[in-house]
Amino acid sequence: MKKKENLRPIWINKKDPSIINIIDQRMLPHKFVVADLKNVDDVIFAIKEMMVRGAPLIGVTGAFGVYLSCINLEKTGIQDKDIILQCKKIKNSRPTAVNLFWAVDKVLNKILQEKTSSAKIKMALKETLKIVDFEIQSSKKIGLLGYDLIKKISKRKNNKTVNILTHCNAGFLATIEYGTATAPIYTALEKNIDIHVFVDETRPLNQGARLTCWELSQKKIKHTIITDNAGGHLMQHKIIDMVIVGTDRTTYTGDVANKIGTYLKALAAKDNNIPFYVALPSSTFDWNIKDGLKQIKIEKRDPNEVKFVQGLVDEKIKNVLICPKTTPGLNYAFDVTPQRLVTGFITERGICHANEKAIKNLFPEKA
Amino acid sequence: MKKKENLRPIWINKKDPSIINIIDQRMLPHKFVVADLKNVDDVIFAIKEMMVRGAPLIGVTGAFGVYLSCINLEKTGIQDKDIILQCKKIKNSRPTAVNLFWAVDKVLNKILQEKTSSAKIKMALKETLKIVDFEIQSSKKIGLLGYDLIKKISKRKNNKTVNILTHCNAGFLATIEYGTATAPIYTALEKNIDIHVFVDETRPLNQGARLTCWELSQKKIKHTIITDNAGGHLMQHKIIDMVIVGTDRTTYTGDVANKIGTYLKALAAKDNNIPFYVALPSSTFDWNIKDGLKQIKIEKRDPNEVKFVQGLVDEKIKNVLICPKTTPGLNYAFDVTPQRLVTGFITERGICHANEKAIKNLFPEKA
Repeated sequence: MKKKENLRPIWINKKDPSIINIIDQRMLPHKFVVADLKNVDDVIFAIKEMMVRGAPLIGVTGAFGVYLSCINLEKTGIQDKDIILQCKKIKNSRPTAVNLFWAVDKVLNKILQEKTSSAKIKMALKETLKIVDFEIQSSKKIGLLGYDLIKKISKRKNNKTVNILTHCNAGFLATIEYGTATAPIYTALEKNIDIHVFVDETRPLNQGARLTCWELSQKKIKHTIITDNAGGHLMQHKIIDMVIVGTDRTTYTGDVANKIGTYLKALAAKDNNIPFYVALPSSTFDWNIKDGLKQIKIEKRDPNEVKFVQGLVDEKIKNVLICPKTTPGLNYAFDVTPQRLVTGFITERGICHANEKAIKNLFPEKA
Repeated sequence: MKKKENLRPIWINKKDPSIINIIDQRMLPHKFVVADLKNVDDVIFAIKEMMVRGAPLIGVTGAFGVYLSCINLEKTGIQDKDIILQCKKIKNSRPTAVNLFWAVDKVLNKILQEKTSSAKIKMALKETLKIVDFEIQSSKKIGLLGYDLIKKISKRKNNKTVNILTHCNAGFLATIEYGTATAPIYTALEKNIDIHVFVDETRPLNQGARLTCWELSQKKIKHTIITDNAGGHLMQHKIIDMVIVGTDRTTYTGDVANKIGTYLKALAAKDNNIPFYVALPSSTFDWNIKDGLKQIKIEKRDPNEVKFVQGLVDEKIKNVLICPKTTPGLNYAFDVTPQRLVTGFITERGICHANEKAIKNLFPEKA
């Protein structure tokens, strides 16, 4: 097993820079598997099948996809029309994640300015690494800003345990380092705040159970797995001090697309007057969409993800059928939490309320 | 496999009336297993391990438990103090279900009025069968009354499919016949209303996925399994016309204890102006409790129910581990939906709003 310290979910193969390595997140926490991405088809498969997932990581993987496509097109000479087509294919692999469009377009625009194939490849790599660095720096800043919020709660509770609920996975596996929703938690740990995380299982693919629990256990952060059904009850009984989640796409008006079930937790937080924060780098904002509920395309995935549950049995990873074989399933992957339910956004630029004015205050260049 | 028509979840063994038979609901839908209950310990095990579940069925099983305890005590002569002690043990097996207390006490009170052991046994059986009949008649009436609500929606939609969401299982497996939440659905089917049921998986024990889907498929009612996370999204997009759930205990003021996660669905229904109904026989009302959130004891069950998921793999029923082995789990089995979120109750006496006045209007003897 690869050494887990300073581990990232994606990196350039040291021996062969035409290969991108990823952690195959489908196998965690039971198996640690590293996969090779060698071309655009590999990249699309990895994104579609959720070997990689999480808005920032999907963006970075897409960017590396553009780089891989340049390398593979080099043999015949890179034509702009070919590279544009490849980028389109990559962007179609997940309809909800805005970082993917943002990152792929960012790299593409730079490539189109270069003349030679080798300059295009060099630029693709350079721009991708800039995106990687941006995501890492953003996560760091989100961590520090979010820590301030946790510290205040800790003080109010006389340093008693701060209980945070999170849905899905928005840790380093979903980003590159630190995470978004978990960055404040890591920072709080470093600063010796007594912290405990309730982790939603996050059906159907159990990213909370599999990935968030694994990440937190790697850092020895106290945590407990609960079913997706349990958050409301815990909030009613004030067992949760704060909710922090990530997002796959957030409108400039403050509507938040995130893993299905987030909306239900936001409703419960509002009903019980518990702060509900969304942590995101600016790359996850969609500056073109005004009404999240009406305009964000929600991906429908394979119903078998609902009908089967993956887990470890007899030391093997298997899928068990949980309902009658003939029962049809329906599998929307995301939902939209309206901005009225969001206490605030934790971004790399600062914390702001969930409305257009406050968001554009932080990002005046978008106003 | 036993013939499924006119099937009940509990019955007296035809060859030996000192044995009570139940369907072992833990094995459905993958295996149909009938178990024997021969004494109070068997009854308590069956209730605790959820071989039987659902408020009315738990009550009936408890009542049969009193009958079995009489039979077993007969050898030494039935002492009232012994029978009272046995009843206490039975009542302790599930803290949330009020039907259990109601049914056991109903049988016990009648037994205490009888002098001889044989008269006590006879009375225990007679009173239990009266409870069985009451639950069946209640379900029938709930079905007819709930059907009126569905019919109205169907008319409003010009006979287009009526989409109903239900959480957990409140069909005949949870009652004796017809069910509570599903009784209106069965009745609507009989009356040729075009109906479709969205079934919440209902983690951790997946009673929706396992039992409700199985029941509906037996009757060829259109249905789809969704994760517990999905209901909010479907309601936001008006894909759900109505929510109907059962309950384990409902206060006379209208607060509803039901399978964990119900509260989250009720919040989403309210937020989207979708009717949220609770179907229950009067045996599920608790006439002693005013504040459900503060006063209803919520059972905490084995955390392994959260950490593992049961399903069919390689034609065997197995449990798969879904998170790191070391991750702790927390498993509250129920939550309380405050009365302000409930559109109405469908009872055997009629439909009423979720407040003390309206409830006591239907049950003036409790006023």
